[in-house]
Amino acid sequence: MGRWEPNARERLATAALQLYSERGYEQTTVAEIARRAGLTERTYFRHYADKREVLFDGSGALQELFVQAVAEAQESAVPIDAMAAGLDAVSAVFVDRRDHARQRQAVIVANAELQERELIKLASLSAALADALRVRGVAEPAASLTAEAGVAVFKIGFERWITATEERTLSQLMRESLDQLKVVTAGG
Amino acid sequence: MGRWEPNARERLATAALQLYSERGYEQTTVAEIARRAGLTERTYFRHYADKREVLFDGSGALQELFVQAVAEAQESAVPIDAMAAGLDAVSAVFVDRRDHARQRQAVIVANAELQERELIKLASLSAALADALRVRGVAEPAASLTAEAGVAVFKIGFERWITATEERTLSQLMRESLDQLKVVTAGG
Repeated sequence: MGRWEPNARERLATAALQLYSERGYEQTTVAEIARRAGLTERTYFRHYADKREVLFDGSGALQELFVQAVAEAQESAVPIDAMAAGLDAVSAVFVDRRDHARQRQAVIVANAELQERELIKLASLSAALADALRVRGVAEPAASLTAEAGVAVFKIGFERWITATEERTLSQLMRESLDQLKVVTAGG
Repeated sequence: MGRWEPNARERLATAALQLYSERGYEQTTVAEIARRAGLTERTYFRHYADKREVLFDGSGALQELFVQAVAEAQESAVPIDAMAAGLDAVSAVFVDRRDHARQRQAVIVANAELQERELIKLASLSAALADALRVRGVAEPAASLTAEAGVAVFKIGFERWITATEERTLSQLMRESLDQLKVVTAGG
């Protein structure tokens, strides 16, 4: 698969994001994405199941990384500190991806179907994080609540990071959001 | 509208939930729902836009109630206490609805499309709660984080409430979940 098409997966993802940004998600066809990438429709469907999935290509790897960092946090770490280790790990991945993330987000907020898919991915992330915490011996409902808190910090830290004027790093914003969550839940 | 069809809206919702439980959501048609309720398909579409919406009839009112309680919490209440007032207000509505909630949830978890709709409703609730907190003078990101925390407590408290063996009230479970969230974010 892909032997005669170097980097086909990345080229298709880049072409799709360009076209979705230029013409809108709904107005773009898979045939056009393939053409822009210099590939065939057949090749597209060898890599992605549909028009949506090309925008969510990284979410599986992101979830894996997040969950692994939580799972491998120091044995002595309390649940929220294990979650902080996960947030640090995912922040590192996005360092050079701010423009890409902004462009992708603009496409997603313009389309209800894409927003739904994004919410499903976050719900799946939360469930996987709760699993990892239970494996660490965290009881319910603490495991699920910590997982939801982690995803909330991730979501809000990320949203702040991609606002037009924001210059702080994702890592800084994640930490600030987590600290702020601690303040508000403590009654601040 | 509905002058010759007393309680048409409720009868349709009851019939839909029965049929979705008996046959599955995908296998049920609007015509069958209308027939079970002793009404016409035309009447169905006067009340609900599609097959999904009949399951989410209460979510607008729920959001309104939640948001109103947050907005009207004592002026001196810190954000998380305003959120607790909202959780109390919505808990009161469900007192006699546990069987209904269990039946509805079983239909929703069996269908990806319905789960997506549920997640959209929760995201909308979170956005509305953050708005209400900002009106109370809460800055960002505290407003959004408190709103996400409130929705997480609502979601997890609700999930626990409808598990088969659970006998505590929704109100108790909401409070316990909120207390637990405070413990985990404090590093417990």
